[in-house]
Amino acid sequence: MKTILILGAGKSSTYLIDYLADSCVEKGRKLLLADLDPNLAKSKLKDRPQTEVEEMDLENPQSRRNLIAKADVVISMLPAMMHPVVAKDSLDLGKHFFTASYESDALREMAPEIEKRGLFFLNECGLDPGIDHMSAMKIIDTARSKGEDILSFKSYCGGLLAPESEDNPWKYKFTWNPRNVVLAGQGTSRFIENGELKYVPYHRLFRRVETIKFPGLGEFDGYPNRDSLSYRHVYHLENIPTLLRGTLRRAGFCKAWDVFVQLGMTDDSFLMKFPGGSTYRQFLNAFLPWSDTLTVEEKLAEEIPDLDFSMFEKLQWLGFFEHRPLPRGEGSPAQILQAILEKDWQLLPEDRDMIVMQHQLQIKTASGIKKVTSSLVEIGKDSRYTAMAKTVGLPLAIAVDLFLEGKIKSKGLCLPVVPEIYEPILNELEKHQIRFVEEEWI
Amino acid sequence: MKTILILGAGKSSTYLIDYLADSCVEKGRKLLLADLDPNLAKSKLKDRPQTEVEEMDLENPQSRRNLIAKADVVISMLPAMMHPVVAKDSLDLGKHFFTASYESDALREMAPEIEKRGLFFLNECGLDPGIDHMSAMKIIDTARSKGEDILSFKSYCGGLLAPESEDNPWKYKFTWNPRNVVLAGQGTSRFIENGELKYVPYHRLFRRVETIKFPGLGEFDGYPNRDSLSYRHVYHLENIPTLLRGTLRRAGFCKAWDVFVQLGMTDDSFLMKFPGGSTYRQFLNAFLPWSDTLTVEEKLAEEIPDLDFSMFEKLQWLGFFEHRPLPRGEGSPAQILQAILEKDWQLLPEDRDMIVMQHQLQIKTASGIKKVTSSLVEIGKDSRYTAMAKTVGLPLAIAVDLFLEGKIKSKGLCLPVVPEIYEPILNELEKHQIRFVEEEWI
Repeated sequence: MKTILILGAGKSSTYLIDYLADSCVEKGRKLLLADLDPNLAKSKLKDRPQTEVEEMDLENPQSRRNLIAKADVVISMLPAMMHPVVAKDSLDLGKHFFTASYESDALREMAPEIEKRGLFFLNECGLDPGIDHMSAMKIIDTARSKGEDILSFKSYCGGLLAPESEDNPWKYKFTWNPRNVVLAGQGTSRFIENGELKYVPYHRLFRRVETIKFPGLGEFDGYPNRDSLSYRHVYHLENIPTLLRGTLRRAGFCKAWDVFVQLGMTDDSFLMKFPGGSTYRQFLNAFLPWSDTLTVEEKLAEEIPDLDFSMFEKLQWLGFFEHRPLPRGEGSPAQILQAILEKDWQLLPEDRDMIVMQHQLQIKTASGIKKVTSSLVEIGKDSRYTAMAKTVGLPLAIAVDLFLEGKIKSKGLCLPVVPEIYEPILNELEKHQIRFVEEEWI
Repeated sequence: MKTILILGAGKSSTYLIDYLADSCVEKGRKLLLADLDPNLAKSKLKDRPQTEVEEMDLENPQSRRNLIAKADVVISMLPAMMHPVVAKDSLDLGKHFFTASYESDALREMAPEIEKRGLFFLNECGLDPGIDHMSAMKIIDTARSKGEDILSFKSYCGGLLAPESEDNPWKYKFTWNPRNVVLAGQGTSRFIENGELKYVPYHRLFRRVETIKFPGLGEFDGYPNRDSLSYRHVYHLENIPTLLRGTLRRAGFCKAWDVFVQLGMTDDSFLMKFPGGSTYRQFLNAFLPWSDTLTVEEKLAEEIPDLDFSMFEKLQWLGFFEHRPLPRGEGSPAQILQAILEKDWQLLPEDRDMIVMQHQLQIKTASGIKKVTSSLVEIGKDSRYTAMAKTVGLPLAIAVDLFLEGKIKSKGLCLPVVPEIYEPILNELEKHQIRFVEEEWI
């Protein structure tokens, strides 16, 4: 009997746990679920046979290794910084290792040893990264097998709200880590367009937006992710003239978010300290020039010359023009902004989330340049069975299942970019209604 | 006979060396001058009696300490990162220590030990920091001694070109470390204005400019330095409503420099690699959106909506619109930009530099609010006897001289913000024609 260990029973693990726990009896497996909160773990296992909750004390290396020693396959759903630690333990103890997170340099350094020991370490097998790789590679490999050239590949993904939950002017709430949302895009974004390398600094990112349309859902803003260039290597598209990966927000979000960026409110590099009772309006005013004649609103309009009603309304809705006490008066600007947003962008129990992903390709065929769009829309069931948990957790669960069934034979440090891995996962995802809608025309 | 050791015989040391070397015979001192280039050191000592060149091997701790052991007073004109190392040696060996650089946290940690050993460690005794502190504190202390309140203190300084050397549209050449000029202002600038704390992110800094006038010289741009708030403590102005320190460039410089900032060309956080033979125009284009209809010039005008002729001309003069090969094709954007600027902003032998400094105060007196401006203009003699070398080196030389004469009795870790130190230094600087012109009106 093979033993699967899942570390972390949080929000993103719901579908992962269900899929693997449901398989235990039929496929003769045991599932161990470890979390800092054993009650949470227990509630997610729902007393299914051949499943057990384990105590987790990650800080204690011996306790951590004792836990890993019990398993054949380790799935880390922990914060990303913990992956290399757990991966190293798994390597030392000869266990296979799976995550939905980015393959890190620390993991790459272990690659020769992973291979030598005949282990299978699979990263980037969730949503983004994960489903994006698999669905993109399927289109790319199919085209290449026909001798066609990929001229352009653009891919966008966003974790957003189901349309009926878009009940504020931003059409946004936090469906994942708020800090990552506030700091998103910092650094310089790099991509290639028609053979020209392009660089976009953070303070121009939210203005360098493309409009992306989804059938039946309307328009979205797509802004470039930090480093698209590295995907030339990952996707074996070294000479592609256009390659861009981007993030999606609802149309209009980026222009309004850019006000925060322009003012310096997303800066996380220094600490501010406001006196007790300081207000949203004072926080905003700290980033505006002093004036003895102009109001805060007038100064903002001078600083952001194209401030229009749709941007103004979003700031107003958050309370920035009011003498409302700050929820947090000390911290970096980004931390104070996050505290403000957390009050009003909180997901309510009745809210449903939505994942949108779209690949746009131009492929040179014998009969002309073919345009392909491939779109995925996934809407959550409720605040536990979210679209995020489903699209992150199912691919990972399926990968583990296929590996244990002997249907994935790869070894070493891998990404789901080869047909042996992505084909059966995409097929199984379709059975769970995670499917891409393709359109193509010449 | 007291022995003075100067570490570093570079550009900024010329006046420092002359002043102290000239004093050796009359005041019964010995001067040791150490530099990586012994010929440079020799040429600066000009065979004056009681002066000697020393070999310098800073990487070798024993050799460094042997050198310091020979001295009573150590003056470090080395790169700033070396100061803590030399300071620690000086402390261990019981030597007094002087620099024109900012007092660092590493030095502050040594403060109790410096005091305990009865040593005198003086930092920030050059130009900026240095003359700015001394001249400001003289005005501030004078007002306070009359029971007057300082309502506003703004202070600007710049290392620029003498008007007759302003022979390019930027009216700028490198008169000091080019890398520091390219990276100047990165981070968020903080100051206080009329009781309101103000924060300006880097990407807005070169637009948040005030016009500063010097009699007979015309207009300059003044932009806020990174952290003005810490000077509330240094100057004992804890409750001052307005305090800002800034940097001066010639009028029009900042708007044009801001084009580089907006495009991301001053970013030092990632590496670019252009194919051999890539041009200035391609470098510029990498920061502009792709277009199949617009030229680079047209795209730039779209990205920088207020691009006017004076900004355009400055970029054109540097060659940015030409197919001219890049002097450096690999490196961070800031490094490539620096290589471009170094070709055309190089100081020629016939060029003269200029230091400009201006304090602007508002002081509440019995008869109303008094406005004071105090301005310093210093023009270099030639490319060796620069205004920069004079204003950095003379205050430091004078401080050492006064200390050895027993006219400064302070001990411990000090800044030149107390009358015992700044009064005699300012008096001696006046004899060398470094003098402030004050205007005041109510």
